[in-house]
Amino acid sequence: MKNGELVLLLSEDKYYLVEVSNKIFNTQSGIIDLKKLKKKNLGNKIKTHLGKEFSIVKPNIKDILEKKIKRLPQIIMPKDIALIISYTGIEPGSLVVDAGTGSGFLAMFLANYIKPGKVVTYENNKRFIKITKNNIRISGLSKFIRLKQKDILKGIDEKNVDLITLDMKNAEKVINHAWKSLKTGGYLVVYSPHVEQVISVWKEIKKKGFSYIKTVENIVREWQVEKITRPKTIGLMHTGFLTFARKVK
Amino acid sequence: MKNGELVLLLSEDKYYLVEVSNKIFNTQSGIIDLKKLKKKNLGNKIKTHLGKEFSIVKPNIKDILEKKIKRLPQIIMPKDIALIISYTGIEPGSLVVDAGTGSGFLAMFLANYIKPGKVVTYENNKRFIKITKNNIRISGLSKFIRLKQKDILKGIDEKNVDLITLDMKNAEKVINHAWKSLKTGGYLVVYSPHVEQVISVWKEIKKKGFSYIKTVENIVREWQVEKITRPKTIGLMHTGFLTFARKVK
Amino acid sequence: MKNGELVLLLSEDKYYLVEVSNKIFNTQSGIIDLKKLKKKNLGNKIKTHLGKEFSIVKPNIKDILEKKIKRLPQIIMPKDIALIISYTGIEPGSLVVDAGTGSGFLAMFLANYIKPGKVVTYENNKRFIKITKNNIRISGLSKFIRLKQKDILKGIDEKNVDLITLDMKNAEKVINHAWKSLKTGGYLVVYSPHVEQVISVWKEIKKKGFSYIKTVENIVREWQVEKITRPKTIGLMHTGFLTFARKVK
Amino acid sequence: MKNGELVLLLSEDKYYLVEVSNKIFNTQSGIIDLKKLKKKNLGNKIKTHLGKEFSIVKPNIKDILEKKIKRLPQIIMPKDIALIISYTGIEPGSLVVDAGTGSGFLAMFLANYIKPGKVVTYENNKRFIKITKNNIRISGLSKFIRLKQKDILKGIDEKNVDLITLDMKNAEKVINHAWKSLKTGGYLVVYSPHVEQVISVWKEIKKKGFSYIKTVENIVREWQVEKITRPKTIGLMHTGFLTFARKVK
Repeated sequence: MKNGELVLLLSEDKYYLVEVSNKIFNTQSGIIDLKKLKKKNLGNKIKTHLGKEFSIVKPNIKDILEKKIKRLPQIIMPKDIALIISYTGIEPGSLVVDAGTGSGFLAMFLANYIKPGKVVTYENNKRFIKITKNNIRISGLSKFIRLKQKDILKGIDEKNVDLITLDMKNAEKVINHAWKSLKTGGYLVVYSPHVEQVISVWKEIKKKGFSYIKTVENIVREWQVEKITRPKTIGLMHTGFLTFARKVK
Repeated sequence: MKNGELVLLLSEDKYYLVEVSNKIFNTQSGIIDLKKLKKKNLGNKIKTHLGKEFSIVKPNIKDILEKKIKRLPQIIMPKDIALIISYTGIEPGSLVVDAGTGSGFLAMFLANYIKPGKVVTYENNKRFIKITKNNIRISGLSKFIRLKQKDILKGIDEKNVDLITLDMKNAEKVINHAWKSLKTGGYLVVYSPHVEQVISVWKEIKKKGFSYIKTVENIVREWQVEKITRPKTIGLMHTGFLTFARKVK
Repeated sequence: MKNGELVLLLSEDKYYLVEVSNKIFNTQSGIIDLKKLKKKNLGNKIKTHLGKEFSIVKPNIKDILEKKIKRLPQIIMPKDIALIISYTGIEPGSLVVDAGTGSGFLAMFLANYIKPGKVVTYENNKRFIKITKNNIRISGLSKFIRLKQKDILKGIDEKNVDLITLDMKNAEKVINHAWKSLKTGGYLVVYSPHVEQVISVWKEIKKKGFSYIKTVENIVREWQVEKITRPKTIGLMHTGFLTFARKVK
Repeated sequence: MKNGELVLLLSEDKYYLVEVSNKIFNTQSGIIDLKKLKKKNLGNKIKTHLGKEFSIVKPNIKDILEKKIKRLPQIIMPKDIALIISYTGIEPGSLVVDAGTGSGFLAMFLANYIKPGKVVTYENNKRFIKITKNNIRISGLSKFIRLKQKDILKGIDEKNVDLITLDMKNAEKVINHAWKSLKTGGYLVVYSPHVEQVISVWKEIKKKGFSYIKTVENIVREWQVEKITRPKTIGLMHTGFLTFARKVK
């Protein structure tokens, strides 16, 4: 494997995302000499000095986002991104506009499914930009994501867009710009943590002339199955509301 | 537009999926002469003889699956497919094995996100095969789906698979084959309508040595937002359980 | 059994609420001569002319409300009444004020648990009053329910009340009256079908000085257990929101 | 107020359950001399030495159970007890049999709604008996609860019972006894933390001839309404399943 390559070290109870390098890596079950990875291939095994074995695997987008990405508060969850992907029918090659970028979590997640298409993501907060740039570099998705430091309230440069995702305050003020940028048949999705935004976004969406407007929330319940079978006691009761709308004209 | 091309005719309250041809098409708001589509381009408008206007749009996978596909009973829902896509990190280029095909709904949905990768889908029921073949042809995804008339209980031919999805009776008897076919780091997902299958699948999954096993259900609640804001009264309380497992060795 | 007495005829698949009388009663499995009930006691059996056997049972409040009560639209459900009962700690002897009465469903349900206490219920709509009076008479709870034809917006006559329940438009305009009527330590519960009312009720409740304010919704999911075990597919996703508040001063 | 009387000291943000006595009571906002309560009446106020004011209130069952009762693990929640009360139509005067007692939480809760009826509660674990006896004494419901140290698997002494509640391992072995004890028209309710018990209980219930069998779970979601309106992020996803059955013969 090549220097700088990102690999997943996978065991039955722990996994780590590491870069091939000359460094030493500390796991909870002993030390791994990352130099040794250079003579290994994907699918091979590597051991710590205490004998714990790890499989060497190509990381997928979920591994990267979970393990390597510096998170900022209020990240949108995979369960919610899931609905965006499956309800809008985007596909490899789609053009997506996203705002605000935040940590880039949503932009990277979407980029994974629309590559070789492009996600153009707008962020106006300088402090986030730096963190996010680094996140995108690490994710290996740089070619498919364009990070713009720009206030999306001032307009969207892209035209003929397949999907616009808004996860930001004042999303209702972007509806007009979104309409102009979307291609006919394209989708707008707004992620809103509270009901007040859902209502103000709906008002603008209706006024602008969007159709097939739909707001949902989804509750994912995890189950315990070993020994006894029952839903887990504590869980996420709410993350946000997703409002979908389609431009038909 | 070319003869035989599939286009979406989209208005604010109705949409239709039609083939460019010399036929006449009846909408609820009048007749459309499909021949006229030959002189139109995507993004143009077309009117019925009663003056109702439709935008001419390239259909996405959701449009096609909703409008053109002959459905067989107990289809897996987009909300559940959504989790499969986002929890397993598949991507354009992935290799997926799917069984049983049924109407092909899941295979086509997944193919949309992993193209130019491939979904190989196993179905042993001759009666389904014919319907599904036609469904796949219509979807335009034929290049990315291989439909096999074979009993998957007898083994999986593919190796180094990224994701195996099982939506079938006796899924617990396929776990062993799935293990052999999956690449290290790959995922198995079983869709189970009832708890009994979840339990028997877990038993086999544990025995075989899969890791990061997780069973979830997701409940999507749709909201009314116009005039008053409240969850819709009646809805889907349950479709199925999704069990995820990862091969780590 | 005495003439005019209300009894439940209970079989394994059907049940009927009938009055002891000289009439003939038609069931789906034959005719029952209600005169014969006069020689029977609770716990005895009675047969239709086709031989279908029914147990003669004293009906409980649920039997009566399900079978005999003329319902008006938008009735509050037993699952929601359940939380009112168990979250407020009312008990036999409590004094409850309720508005608007509607069909009297909530008033009768509560009366069953607080008898020999009293439920005073306010209804301003003449059309409802007549139906409700009859409902209350049938329920056998007349001694414990006082139905007032009065606009509760004009004030609540009762003092030192343990619980006030509001299931009506403009509930937010009753908060001030409720405060004056409740005893210290008493509860106000507002049942709101939509978020807008929840918000306007909260505003008044906070302004007035109520404490321990809490809004909940509860989703009851029914399960199929025979043959296979799974939640039932379709169900009630939403009825209303319950807002609880306590007067502490 | 009399020596030994239990009163609730209620302020807008804290509340305490205290006994009228000669002791000193420490609140987070200063000291209260409980002796002073002897010259007070319900509805009066009392202040700490730091000037924080509390209303003197008669505690309800919820106050007592929350504040004074020694809890044992895996207590049944008010939301679940709520459904037992409202789905079975018990009322003041009903006779209830309950097992296993545990901390007595369910027995006391039910007693509050059926007094002057009786809850007979079975517990075989000596260690629990002592704690529970004290709990019942404190609750002031001693007259309405009979605690039996007996293994309910060996039989139920009571006849003509309105409701039997089982919250215990091996509940399926009590079904036969329950049938014999219930009056015709009476209800059996089993609280099961996991699916396996639900299934084994159903099997016995069906075999025995119970009717109107129904299993539900209820999910109570709490909402934040101040400032923004949204369901609270984290919550109770599962407590247990409630299985209801009625004796019709």
